[in-house]
Amino acid sequence: MHTIEPITRAVEAFATLPGIGPKTAQRLAFYLLRQPADTVRELAEAILNMQAAVHFCSVCGNVTDVEPCNICRSDQRDQSTICVVEDPLAVITLERTRIYKGLYHVLHGALDPLHGVTVEDLKIEELVRRVQGDTVKEVILATNPNVEGDTTAGYLERRLAPLGVHITRLARGLPVGGDLEYADEVTLARALEGRRPTT
Amino acid sequence: MHTIEPITRAVEAFATLPGIGPKTAQRLAFYLLRQPADTVRELAEAILNMQAAVHFCSVCGNVTDVEPCNICRSDQRDQSTICVVEDPLAVITLERTRIYKGLYHVLHGALDPLHGVTVEDLKIEELVRRVQGDTVKEVILATNPNVEGDTTAGYLERRLAPLGVHITRLARGLPVGGDLEYADEVTLARALEGRRPTT
Repeated sequence: MHTIEPITRAVEAFATLPGIGPKTAQRLAFYLLRQPADTVRELAEAILNMQAAVHFCSVCGNVTDVEPCNICRSDQRDQSTICVVEDPLAVITLERTRIYKGLYHVLHGALDPLHGVTVEDLKIEELVRRVQGDTVKEVILATNPNVEGDTTAGYLERRLAPLGVHITRLARGLPVGGDLEYADEVTLARALEGRRPTT
Repeated sequence: MHTIEPITRAVEAFATLPGIGPKTAQRLAFYLLRQPADTVRELAEAILNMQAAVHFCSVCGNVTDVEPCNICRSDQRDQSTICVVEDPLAVITLERTRIYKGLYHVLHGALDPLHGVTVEDLKIEELVRRVQGDTVKEVILATNPNVEGDTTAGYLERRLAPLGVHITRLARGLPVGGDLEYADEVTLARALEGRRPTT
């Protein structure tokens, strides 16, 4: 088997990315080989430039290219509400709804003692400090609806309750557009428990 | 929605790659943000370096970083047999079998008149020139087993037949490890037509 080192190197670099297996990595490398040099340079530069230009906001921990981030510095946002999420992607997803007008706090992970992620690894003390004082009235715990997310939310609830803020969590229930038949039992049970009167 | 330009640029660059949708592109960009600078630089450099270092072999059209490529220049390979494939990925796949010991010819596509791919767009004249002369005894047509590949193989058969070489095609039949129940009718029909006596 004759391997071509520069191709092998690119394939291996692609294969380190999440969700990209060896076959996909090979396909991507050969695709790029056939592209104009400008296209290839644009991808390489965009990757390099991103990490150089982006850092984490010192207030909320979200990704930003200004300090503090545009959400933290905005006078259009409700300073009395903080939505706590696990990662920056969750901020993007929530922003897309165009419903939430408060601030965020990005934990950069979820408690997972089995894999060595403890309180010190997350931006939890930073959150506690933000909630102390009179500005914040509500903290929305929007960690992921899985074991680690629930563990994290439970811990945060115990930490924040003494501070006298209103603590809420995102509703659990049937996904909109989903089919009752395909809902798992846990989701369906939560949807029943959380049933609401028709208005 | 607050967008961060350097991230948007990286997401858009990833999304131009085949099989990478907007969601995957976003996931890749945020994954890279969390990686050490060295990892990110390695990916960017591998991408840039690949296109700079790799070109197409002037003899067979396969990708290579030497001229002619390692297969064309090897004295271990049977110079009298040429296996014709559509793209460099097919060469890698065939080499992996470790059975084929001849040379290759990469067409860089398949005839597809509906999408404007004609004889002039493929490395067909180069193949004809290679087959002329006394060295080549057999040409294996290993184009993809679909309409475009079959059209291309049919055309090549007509072009090469007058040159007096032995022309063969890869066998069609049931994939090894597959289940008869799941074979489509066309494949099954080919498997029946091509049935061979047990030895």
